[in-house]
Amino acid sequence: MMGSASNEKIGVLLASLTARFTGKVCEIADRTKKLGQDDPRRITHSLKVGFALTLVSLFYYYQPLYNSFGASAMWAVMTVIVVFEFSVGATLGKGLNRGLATLVAGALGIGAHHLASLSGHIGEPILLGIFVFLQAATSTFIRFFPKIKARYDYGLLIFILTFSLISVSGFRDDEVLELAHKRISTIFIGGSACVIVSILVFPVWAGEDLHNLIAANIEKLGNFLEGFGGEYFKTLEDIAESKDDKAFLLGYKSVLNSKSSEESLANFARWEPGHGRFSFRHPWTQYLKVGALIQQCSYRIEALHGRLITADIQASPEIRNRIEESCTKLSLESGKALKALASDFRTMTKSPSADPHIANAKAAAKSLKSLLKSGLREDIDLLEVVPAATVASLLLDVVNCTEKIVESVYELGSLANFETVEATVSPEKSHELGKICRDKKSPMMDCPHVVIKITESPPVLPVNIGKTSQQILEV
Amino acid sequence: MMGSASNEKIGVLLASLTARFTGKVCEIADRTKKLGQDDPRRITHSLKVGFALTLVSLFYYYQPLYNSFGASAMWAVMTVIVVFEFSVGATLGKGLNRGLATLVAGALGIGAHHLASLSGHIGEPILLGIFVFLQAATSTFIRFFPKIKARYDYGLLIFILTFSLISVSGFRDDEVLELAHKRISTIFIGGSACVIVSILVFPVWAGEDLHNLIAANIEKLGNFLEGFGGEYFKTLEDIAESKDDKAFLLGYKSVLNSKSSEESLANFARWEPGHGRFSFRHPWTQYLKVGALIQQCSYRIEALHGRLITADIQASPEIRNRIEESCTKLSLESGKALKALASDFRTMTKSPSADPHIANAKAAAKSLKSLLKSGLREDIDLLEVVPAATVASLLLDVVNCTEKIVESVYELGSLANFETVEATVSPEKSHELGKICRDKKSPMMDCPHVVIKITESPPVLPVNIGKTSQQILEV
Repeated sequence: MMGSASNEKIGVLLASLTARFTGKVCEIADRTKKLGQDDPRRITHSLKVGFALTLVSLFYYYQPLYNSFGASAMWAVMTVIVVFEFSVGATLGKGLNRGLATLVAGALGIGAHHLASLSGHIGEPILLGIFVFLQAATSTFIRFFPKIKARYDYGLLIFILTFSLISVSGFRDDEVLELAHKRISTIFIGGSACVIVSILVFPVWAGEDLHNLIAANIEKLGNFLEGFGGEYFKTLEDIAESKDDKAFLLGYKSVLNSKSSEESLANFARWEPGHGRFSFRHPWTQYLKVGALIQQCSYRIEALHGRLITADIQASPEIRNRIEESCTKLSLESGKALKALASDFRTMTKSPSADPHIANAKAAAKSLKSLLKSGLREDIDLLEVVPAATVASLLLDVVNCTEKIVESVYELGSLANFETVEATVSPEKSHELGKICRDKKSPMMDCPHVVIKITESPPVLPVNIGKTSQQILEV
Repeated sequence: MMGSASNEKIGVLLASLTARFTGKVCEIADRTKKLGQDDPRRITHSLKVGFALTLVSLFYYYQPLYNSFGASAMWAVMTVIVVFEFSVGATLGKGLNRGLATLVAGALGIGAHHLASLSGHIGEPILLGIFVFLQAATSTFIRFFPKIKARYDYGLLIFILTFSLISVSGFRDDEVLELAHKRISTIFIGGSACVIVSILVFPVWAGEDLHNLIAANIEKLGNFLEGFGGEYFKTLEDIAESKDDKAFLLGYKSVLNSKSSEESLANFARWEPGHGRFSFRHPWTQYLKVGALIQQCSYRIEALHGRLITADIQASPEIRNRIEESCTKLSLESGKALKALASDFRTMTKSPSADPHIANAKAAAKSLKSLLKSGLREDIDLLEVVPAATVASLLLDVVNCTEKIVESVYELGSLANFETVEATVSPEKSHELGKICRDKKSPMMDCPHVVIKITESPPVLPVNIGKTSQQILEV
């Protein structure tokens, strides 16, 4: 009896342990799957690292290659591991930093070794120690300069490393020149392997990521603004009825803290060669300016969102009804402007498709102001006016922000030579017509509203049908 | 003539070049000086790195030490360079990551080498290649998990490095055991040198930096709020007269983007042993919560600041005058509450010194609401009400934010066992009295208002004079 009871206990214990274990394993598997699905480039990146590493370790396995480098081939393996980063820009930046720093530090290290060896057996280690101390302290201090930290931090680390390595090794091994030469050539091999694999096999461009991040951020603000009006002016019955997903209202939250990733992506992007629609000297700093304006706008939106969730003072229905239409319109049109801008920006085209929405938003702002100007009922509580007035004033701010974002994106468009798309009808219709024309494969002349592409023109062309028909002939 | 003219030209050119060069040198010298003055720990850190490096390179210079490690002593030098970071936490984190990863990867690498060597001369490189590929790809993918990236990123890098190094080297050199042993022991030496120097010589604690950063951020918001009321309700004549420095109004800007530095400091702080007033299990995550609330408040303040600079609609003087007193009071008292809180927080004490200010701010909020409740003149423009109403509503929000910050700091105080300071009179007076008592070196009983310290008590003690005199006897 006793035995079977304790056996049972052990059985139950084992079962619960197995259940917990399998639960944990399933959870980890789920997370892994999600991580891969969120960005499949993570999987490709992992395989690319494995591939580059296996490639470089051939220097060890294959006899003719091993003959020329020997055990130093290990530096190539190490270089691949520490230099291979997710994006091409980061890999190139690290590779160039490592290569150049090794070159300069190698030369200086040989010089230090020679200088020290002149001073006899006792003086040599003392002098070497002083050199190493001085260069390490100086280089470490230089790493604190913000601009240098952003772009050359890794280079300075490798500078300290190589200088110490060469000059200190020289004390025991007189073949410093050969050591320096082997280190430089193996690092070159490892770095090249990284750069080649990262550019040729499913490249991940930091510049493209930055471009998409900015476009996504503009779109997120647009989504919020499109939905805000309807959400704020919901009646209590509406709120009770609707239990739908409001994720679109929270999308902007990630924009608030997007600055640091924008900065690091811009730093990486600067190392990247021209690729696709991005030239080598693409105006990445302008992206940061646009990003800063987007962030400014997101702070306003955060304040607006605060109005949605804190409802300690209820606005009087009279005021709400009075401003509802123009506020909703203002918010909706600002949102549409941003979304149109985001979609143009994503495809790197310049078109005035955001302009009509901006104009509408401004008209709504004007009518909102004049609505507010007309007098109030005598007996109204100012306290009941406050919430609505706040929303109105924040929305008026948002129109300004939106306009600034549009302007800065237009400026970026000119700097980066975005292609110009001229819309002769309202954007939706033009897209439809363009689609129909493309689908029918009809000759261009049959589609009077076809989209015309002209490069190098002012950011916003006035809509002018007369001119357009002339341009069709020029195409 | 011609010769002297060209000589003159060269002279002018040389002079201008020298001037530009000296100008540039002076600029760099100024910046260097400023960098050192802003944080003198940067200079000490640079010297510490130089010192640790020179110390470890003794393994190369000093014959008896060299005999035991040989050329492998270079690993110790490399370890010092890559592991030594600015704060103790970062150094410890990197050192432990490097040490543990080397240990585990070394063992696995030896295993992989043995397994591969069983499969004959042709099979060995193929099997090794497969092992290296698989572990590199897997480890690289694991580095994408956010939690692992935050704490163990460097460990995984070193894991890939050591595994590849040991298993691939094994193909050429059968003494892998010795290689692994030497690598582990030299890394241990280098890592210990870093950790010892970074803890013993002018240590920089990430935890202390995080603590001070949070205190400074609370204070910055307090500074803004203290000044805001006076600034907003300035008359036009005031504005024309005053040309004083408004830096205190912009201090909060750095708070907006403080999240990423808070997170990395908290990550480093978790590695640190107990030091000074911080225990090993100090509630660093609560710091992040406080930080998030501070950020929330800074967004409101950004919106308030926007009200200072955009003045496209001027509020009617009637409304301005009506709300001026309570708004100014509300803002001032919120600011004072935050500043009192910051100063308590900085010294890691719990005292109710912020509470009276919070109570005052809430009273001001109440009176502001009732002021707004009373009717308006019949002919007033709602448009002229909007700016003042917005400021009022944002300020009401700020009171809520301030209260939340105070609560979360009190919670942190309980979690971290801050010392309790009970103020029996208003905070300023109590400080003054305390100071007088300390200055006079009078016996404690002569100072009825002396500050009493009790540990482990509820965060906010009610002010109670009767109880205090009893507690004095218990001290």
